[in-house]
Amino acid sequence: MEKRIYNFSAGPAILPEEVIKAAQEELFCLPGVGMSILEISHRSKVFDKIHAEAKDGLKKLLNISDDYHILFLQGGASLQFSMVPLNLMPPANKADYIVTGTWSKKAVSEAKRVGTVNISASTADQNFIRVPKQDELKLDPGAAYLHYTSNNTIFGTQFHSEPDPGNVPLVCDASSDILHKKIDVSKYALIYAGAQKNIGPSGVTLVIIRKDMLERSSDSIHTMLNYKTHTENDSLYNTPNVFGIYIIALVTKHLEKMGGLDAMYELNKKKAGLLYDCIDNSGGFFKGHAQKDSRSLMNITFTLGSEELEKKLISEATAAGFDGLKGHRSVGGLRASIYNAFPIAGVEALVSFMNDFMKRNG
Amino acid sequence: MEKRIYNFSAGPAILPEEVIKAAQEELFCLPGVGMSILEISHRSKVFDKIHAEAKDGLKKLLNISDDYHILFLQGGASLQFSMVPLNLMPPANKADYIVTGTWSKKAVSEAKRVGTVNISASTADQNFIRVPKQDELKLDPGAAYLHYTSNNTIFGTQFHSEPDPGNVPLVCDASSDILHKKIDVSKYALIYAGAQKNIGPSGVTLVIIRKDMLERSSDSIHTMLNYKTHTENDSLYNTPNVFGIYIIALVTKHLEKMGGLDAMYELNKKKAGLLYDCIDNSGGFFKGHAQKDSRSLMNITFTLGSEELEKKLISEATAAGFDGLKGHRSVGGLRASIYNAFPIAGVEALVSFMNDFMKRNG
Repeated sequence: MEKRIYNFSAGPAILPEEVIKAAQEELFCLPGVGMSILEISHRSKVFDKIHAEAKDGLKKLLNISDDYHILFLQGGASLQFSMVPLNLMPPANKADYIVTGTWSKKAVSEAKRVGTVNISASTADQNFIRVPKQDELKLDPGAAYLHYTSNNTIFGTQFHSEPDPGNVPLVCDASSDILHKKIDVSKYALIYAGAQKNIGPSGVTLVIIRKDMLERSSDSIHTMLNYKTHTENDSLYNTPNVFGIYIIALVTKHLEKMGGLDAMYELNKKKAGLLYDCIDNSGGFFKGHAQKDSRSLMNITFTLGSEELEKKLISEATAAGFDGLKGHRSVGGLRASIYNAFPIAGVEALVSFMNDFMKRNG
Repeated sequence: MEKRIYNFSAGPAILPEEVIKAAQEELFCLPGVGMSILEISHRSKVFDKIHAEAKDGLKKLLNISDDYHILFLQGGASLQFSMVPLNLMPPANKADYIVTGTWSKKAVSEAKRVGTVNISASTADQNFIRVPKQDELKLDPGAAYLHYTSNNTIFGTQFHSEPDPGNVPLVCDASSDILHKKIDVSKYALIYAGAQKNIGPSGVTLVIIRKDMLERSSDSIHTMLNYKTHTENDSLYNTPNVFGIYIIALVTKHLEKMGGLDAMYELNKKKAGLLYDCIDNSGGFFKGHAQKDSRSLMNITFTLGSEELEKKLISEATAAGFDGLKGHRSVGGLRASIYNAFPIAGVEALVSFMNDFMKRNG
């Protein structure tokens, strides 16, 4: 079996080895089925069971009540940037958005095509080194909803608790930190997330939508963009990403076995802590991009004294089997993405490598 | 290794065994990469190569010129039902549609949200047992485009050559027969196809779009619904279905190895011929649904004398390892979907089974 490297990619990202091995074992033939998961009909009983396992797995992990539909759609968070306002903005035709980085800016752009966007807060003038505090939010009590991005992959910031929207429905793009800890889903009207960080492979979008929100979806919306189409057909209006949903079922089982999301949260705090400690104890050799109280547990962003040194570190790290550490061009420097499935041994190895690099270059 | 059954499902459908085996072998670790295809970044060089292989493979098989973009999107043909009129209908705001079944009807519904739809021809009054002839088409020379569905999975009919649209751009939903033979792509302005029949697994939509069509796409279209977004970013505006594209690359290589699309066409004619001969030689025991000159090479639809007999045949066939033969409720009876990857041995086995069934029940 080939040696796997440490994959710090921001997404698509590392999956649990156990999940990939299980999928590999039965890829040619699902046990007792005589067909590959790549070949079965989405209308078959075999798929019904897998689909139910994926939904039930998420339901259990996040304690999702029957007030919500769990959908597996396509088009990524990027299509949700449009579907959310198309469905939820009427009749008020105005919504509040918190801007904490590239993804929320993109969400705002699409929402503006539908109605009026009020920027409740933005940390753009600080190059998004932090997320805003509750008392900074300018909230419109007449807004159709308040939208925010729970974790910002590019800048390495994260909301450690959800903003309080008052009586307005809360909508969250949780693409890059869903399932990293237990959240209180009942606080949300809608949560959406591309699967490719913590949930599964790319090509599936998870949407958790509170049933009362569907009253807003007008029949004039194009069929595939209307949440009602998908809730009324249990995500099977058209052919879904069957393989992606199958992997999600395996991932949820794996997370349950690992002790559920409370255990994942402890592990995620521990993993991120190792890296932040290394940065904080480096006497300024490594500089964290995010303000301490906004630091992400998923994406650790940092810079070095010079671009030259950063390039050297990335190049040496890549050679040593640490992949995907180059930071996004809007921040520069390095970014270690350490989602649920990233092993603590890989974080420890990177910390040791970084300390050694500092000794040699500090 | 577990025994595989004969999968006659209409889609998602059977894939070449060689492709599934190759994918299985390297699912845990792509050779020399140290990561699974499920984990690699869509911005990585490894994926760039796979993506190029998938595009080049299709380009070679279908002889697609540089006048066209090849896109791998999400949302299936169902989302294309909206994207096509949103992008291509202006400024004329009217288009011609040929209605030959459920899928073209759905395409019409979405197009009507955008502009005026002229039904050039419909065979609805004959329960779609055939596709219309060229001289039946009422074509509007001022139409933005002419849309048709090349193969109708539910009714088992197929256009054996594309309708002549005059000077109007031709748009085709080729979801269920693309790659079953070589077509002259230069006759088309746009071809779209869900991958899950002849191209790969579910969750990828192939769009082949002639570059001049992009002039019609207004900037007012939502970003993810605008073809320009995807052509300008080579399908990577947002995270694509990486695994799906990888399988497409493998499928195109496999088809090339099998002798290309001319060889596939010969094989497909032979396979369908075996089944149609069995039906035609049954003295009326089996009745084909489609008119002879509209018969599909992909989906063979037929009925028996009674529903009871049909149920008996399906039940016995399932027990004998022939899966997915139940016809769609709009036609009833049976449907054998025999896409490219379906082995001729499976067709021969089914024919022998059908003949035996006829002897026992005729």
